[in-house]
Amino acid sequence: MLVVMKHNAADEHVAEVVRVIKDMGYDARPIPGGQRTAVGLIGNDGRVDAGRLQGLEGVREVIPVTQAYKQVSREWKEDDTLVSLPNGTVVGGSDLVVMAGPCSVEGESVLIDIAHQLKEMGATILRGGAFKPRSSPYSFQGLGEEGLRYLARAREETGMAVVTEALDPAGVQLVAEYADILQIGARNMQNYPLLREVGRAGKPVLLKRGMSATIEEFLLAAEYILAEGNDDVILCERGVRSFAKHTRNLLDLAAIPVVKSLSHLPIIADPSHGTGLRSKVIPMGRAAVAAGADGLMIEVHHDPPRALSDGAQSLYPEQFGEMMSQIRVIAQAIGRDLAAPLRPAVTR
Amino acid sequence: MLVVMKHNAADEHVAEVVRVIKDMGYDARPIPGGQRTAVGLIGNDGRVDAGRLQGLEGVREVIPVTQAYKQVSREWKEDDTLVSLPNGTVVGGSDLVVMAGPCSVEGESVLIDIAHQLKEMGATILRGGAFKPRSSPYSFQGLGEEGLRYLARAREETGMAVVTEALDPAGVQLVAEYADILQIGARNMQNYPLLREVGRAGKPVLLKRGMSATIEEFLLAAEYILAEGNDDVILCERGVRSFAKHTRNLLDLAAIPVVKSLSHLPIIADPSHGTGLRSKVIPMGRAAVAAGADGLMIEVHHDPPRALSDGAQSLYPEQFGEMMSQIRVIAQAIGRDLAAPLRPAVTR
Amino acid sequence: MLVVMKHNAADEHVAEVVRVIKDMGYDARPIPGGQRTAVGLIGNDGRVDAGRLQGLEGVREVIPVTQAYKQVSREWKEDDTLVSLPNGTVVGGSDLVVMAGPCSVEGESVLIDIAHQLKEMGATILRGGAFKPRSSPYSFQGLGEEGLRYLARAREETGMAVVTEALDPAGVQLVAEYADILQIGARNMQNYPLLREVGRAGKPVLLKRGMSATIEEFLLAAEYILAEGNDDVILCERGVRSFAKHTRNLLDLAAIPVVKSLSHLPIIADPSHGTGLRSKVIPMGRAAVAAGADGLMIEVHHDPPRALSDGAQSLYPEQFGEMMSQIRVIAQAIGRDLAAPLRPAVTR
Amino acid sequence: MLVVMKHNAADEHVAEVVRVIKDMGYDARPIPGGQRTAVGLIGNDGRVDAGRLQGLEGVREVIPVTQAYKQVSREWKEDDTLVSLPNGTVVGGSDLVVMAGPCSVEGESVLIDIAHQLKEMGATILRGGAFKPRSSPYSFQGLGEEGLRYLARAREETGMAVVTEALDPAGVQLVAEYADILQIGARNMQNYPLLREVGRAGKPVLLKRGMSATIEEFLLAAEYILAEGNDDVILCERGVRSFAKHTRNLLDLAAIPVVKSLSHLPIIADPSHGTGLRSKVIPMGRAAVAAGADGLMIEVHHDPPRALSDGAQSLYPEQFGEMMSQIRVIAQAIGRDLAAPLRPAVTR
Repeated sequence: MLVVMKHNAADEHVAEVVRVIKDMGYDARPIPGGQRTAVGLIGNDGRVDAGRLQGLEGVREVIPVTQAYKQVSREWKEDDTLVSLPNGTVVGGSDLVVMAGPCSVEGESVLIDIAHQLKEMGATILRGGAFKPRSSPYSFQGLGEEGLRYLARAREETGMAVVTEALDPAGVQLVAEYADILQIGARNMQNYPLLREVGRAGKPVLLKRGMSATIEEFLLAAEYILAEGNDDVILCERGVRSFAKHTRNLLDLAAIPVVKSLSHLPIIADPSHGTGLRSKVIPMGRAAVAAGADGLMIEVHHDPPRALSDGAQSLYPEQFGEMMSQIRVIAQAIGRDLAAPLRPAVTR
Repeated sequence: MLVVMKHNAADEHVAEVVRVIKDMGYDARPIPGGQRTAVGLIGNDGRVDAGRLQGLEGVREVIPVTQAYKQVSREWKEDDTLVSLPNGTVVGGSDLVVMAGPCSVEGESVLIDIAHQLKEMGATILRGGAFKPRSSPYSFQGLGEEGLRYLARAREETGMAVVTEALDPAGVQLVAEYADILQIGARNMQNYPLLREVGRAGKPVLLKRGMSATIEEFLLAAEYILAEGNDDVILCERGVRSFAKHTRNLLDLAAIPVVKSLSHLPIIADPSHGTGLRSKVIPMGRAAVAAGADGLMIEVHHDPPRALSDGAQSLYPEQFGEMMSQIRVIAQAIGRDLAAPLRPAVTR
Repeated sequence: MLVVMKHNAADEHVAEVVRVIKDMGYDARPIPGGQRTAVGLIGNDGRVDAGRLQGLEGVREVIPVTQAYKQVSREWKEDDTLVSLPNGTVVGGSDLVVMAGPCSVEGESVLIDIAHQLKEMGATILRGGAFKPRSSPYSFQGLGEEGLRYLARAREETGMAVVTEALDPAGVQLVAEYADILQIGARNMQNYPLLREVGRAGKPVLLKRGMSATIEEFLLAAEYILAEGNDDVILCERGVRSFAKHTRNLLDLAAIPVVKSLSHLPIIADPSHGTGLRSKVIPMGRAAVAAGADGLMIEVHHDPPRALSDGAQSLYPEQFGEMMSQIRVIAQAIGRDLAAPLRPAVTR
Repeated sequence: MLVVMKHNAADEHVAEVVRVIKDMGYDARPIPGGQRTAVGLIGNDGRVDAGRLQGLEGVREVIPVTQAYKQVSREWKEDDTLVSLPNGTVVGGSDLVVMAGPCSVEGESVLIDIAHQLKEMGATILRGGAFKPRSSPYSFQGLGEEGLRYLARAREETGMAVVTEALDPAGVQLVAEYADILQIGARNMQNYPLLREVGRAGKPVLLKRGMSATIEEFLLAAEYILAEGNDDVILCERGVRSFAKHTRNLLDLAAIPVVKSLSHLPIIADPSHGTGLRSKVIPMGRAAVAAGADGLMIEVHHDPPRALSDGAQSLYPEQFGEMMSQIRVIAQAIGRDLAAPLRPAVTR
């Protein structure tokens, strides 16, 4: 439920609304806006009696939020959320952002080399897994903190922001020390203790859609993060399970405009996991941009056949460059653009 | 299996290859090509001894076709198939074609009115169901032959080509008298007697992917049509069944580049059935074009809320116009274009 | 909509209700019952004004039928439908029936041999495909009418009833001359002209669930047959498409009790297609019986590794015998039984 | 890879095999068996050179384990795993076990009351959620440690064993202090840090299949637990996501015999989550037993319409009693039985 204040409502009126909501046994969250302030009532599962709130001074109207998710909804906040990163990249605005890099961090110098290439080609965020969730306990599980250090070095060298995955609540703090964006993988979309923890970590979060998550479940997972006070959530469509096996997952691009109408959060697409096939990453990357995605996440490896994970879906650097040219024209065709490339390394 | 002849092979050499194949108990199909002739061997489920063919005069090589489908495969025919329609429209070339119109034909004058508008906006093929497959026996089943006559009248008036669905083998002849393209709906993708019949009807066929068809099953269904000697098949991705219900079907755009690499047949997308939601048709139409579709099939109705079927997914004519502008720039961005609009009605 | 007559309503009252319904522009269908007669109103998609009917003499109440399907619903007919076959077998009563035989009819003597064995073990209905729908046009398509003749011979020899598939409307008449039950395969569940044709053929119909059909679509497909006046429909759960590939299809046994509560039609299960794995047919056959199925359809072949189709899922005759013993005890455990074995061949 | 020792191999031969495996860079795990000892080689992703092992004294043969999962496979261990609980209940033997109780623990006295009833009716394990994973952050999340205490009290009163869910690695220790079996929910099937943690907690684990997990992924998740040295894993089929919505999930009973042939671990079924419908729990419970399940997990609530979670799928206690009678006869029909009811409370 959302209590919308009048244009000229005084701070004390807002405070009174908050007091009454708490008195009713719920939590209150003031949401200052360009034109008006609103106060969200949270913690209610079902019906709340709005009468007591409607009569308070300064209240213009009380809007029931009809979905199970609240703070992530467009009803709650009409304007698009913009997620700003320390290197100046903004996710969710009219410029598309590209996150690129290897599936796993494998070594320091190869990581820095490829980061330079990717930056040159226009990526502004570097991806790379230090902690890898693997179906088999016997597969390579990532370099751990060592991988995080390499990512930080690559950031220093290139000015790119860094996104990398956190696997469990206990590890969030460590990842947050190194990363600019905390990634929650598809397998963990409904790992609620982890969602709460990244909600409290003070860093933007990239939340991947679960393998068979409905849009409502996806948005409710994001709601767990916002409910902890962290509004900087970037959603990511990465394909869902289906009967068909011609691609690794079935990239559900319609989820992009659907999410855009239900929520104010930015949403990007991951055609690498979404197809699992190197040769399909470029056409599906183009398609995602045409469908309205706010950016892409792409696996690129300097030597895909030798990658420790996901080699079959990793682009060669040249292919990545080709993709960037292609999505730039698509972006411009629909009145957007790619984020400007980062300037040559900030210092040193 | 494909017997590729040498550049300078004489007609008699080709004839001898055909003779030997028949002698071996299979069917032979000569496929003349720009640079070389090939002879396809069909009717074999498994292994064939190639030795006898390899030694014949004029034979360059014998290529096993490894997929269950043969004549639809790129191995069988490398060049893209172009399907040419009487009104000059070509499907499968560098220009995208748009098929548009109401879900069901509902009346003559409204059909002709909307056809004029669609043509004006750049559609060159008119769609409209005269025979409708409906889940319930009590739903509107289409106007039947009367609907076909209206479609023919709209063609005369506008110069557009006409695509409409045939529901059973017995009805193919009738539909073929009126239509330029025979449509096979998703529910009938594995209706083999129907596929054989349209394979013999002498008209191009639009084959929609079944609700839960794999790409192999889809191509094998097309193979039934080619096996009858009809190569003019246009495939159509229209979404598949999934656990998710935010759209009516899950539009599988990755099927487009996947089919393009496996087959020489053109493939279009139907974002109207693929989403079931008017507001998602334009972004997904754009995405399909960006993914490499050879065209789109779009439901447009002059008054969607009053449509006898599929109103919720039908565009208003103005929206269709907007979509055409948007997909034109996307097409140009990837080095293609929209088919040129038809000239003002042929006269009469 | 269902008009329920009073206990003592006269025939003329029923006739008047029929007259008024027709006058309102709908079709009327009197349904005599043990305790009361009802008149079904069909052909309405949405709301009908019941006022005019409620006031007629002899009318007890007017019941809206809320589902899209009507005649197949429990609301329309409360008692279980019993489908009686010429050889005395009844499908849908307390005794379970077993349909068994090879996937395809391959030869006369092997068919008759296996029929004798199956009958001996308790099957009362012989299955076998004469017309086979195959994904590839180059696969064995069945023996056609010759296969039908072999089935008829096996019936003469054993007294078993015969179930076999009809593939297209034009072929229904021919199949109906030989078969006791006309089978509609999963690929044809929404082949409406075919459903209508078997609805008029005067023989019981076995309708298999489509590969990705919802229960509503399944029942609506049956409604097409009942709408033509044929109430003798046996439904068959045979597994649906899913992401999981450990079985050929995912046998949805919960569909059995769900259908039983929504509809009066009998429903059997096909664990052969439902699993695609010989070793899983027996446990899933047992499970289907425990879930409440009215019978089973089982593929049995005298030499599975040499079967022309579906060998991997066909039981050896000994395994079939073992399955029969096991399902008999399960049936008895839930207060049912297997249908009594047929007596030794009727004569000759 | 599995090194099988000769019948009469000495301990020192086994020790030498272990030493060589470690020398090769892998981990070794001796597996004493009734007739022979084997040594498992773990930690290899792909090919290992067996030559060096084959030649060692006392080695009979070296068996490659072909699946990605190793210790959970039948190749690794042929005999069924029996999981023994402190109250004498054994899971995985010929007697079926039933776990029953409310979805969430809601209060102490109602829990103890229902536990008494369930025990009376033959359940030997009490289920009840203290920590609940909920799609919405605003839904009831369970009573936490208070709920655990109530469960422990119910155990003291009735002698039943207790199974309850652990949600995150940090909470495992706490849950393990109270529970006899640690449950991993479907949403956490691929939460690897959690799997590792329960693998080290020294208590049996109930692992539920993920919503769209393949059988291979399911077994690999179990492998994570065994890889930590905990062999007491009970698998649970609880339905998967599908396009069909007539039940909450699609209960995949064929997974039971499939898992049984691939793995030595016991597997039970949860028809409550598997259907989501009270009226379908009994028939599907029967079917699961007929399919070969080693037990059932059932939600029972003293007042389902007032349950704080999952009321629609919870049985009334009387229905549970009815189910127990029905599954007992099914179990006996296939040569098994229900576990004997616990004796009246152990006293205190």
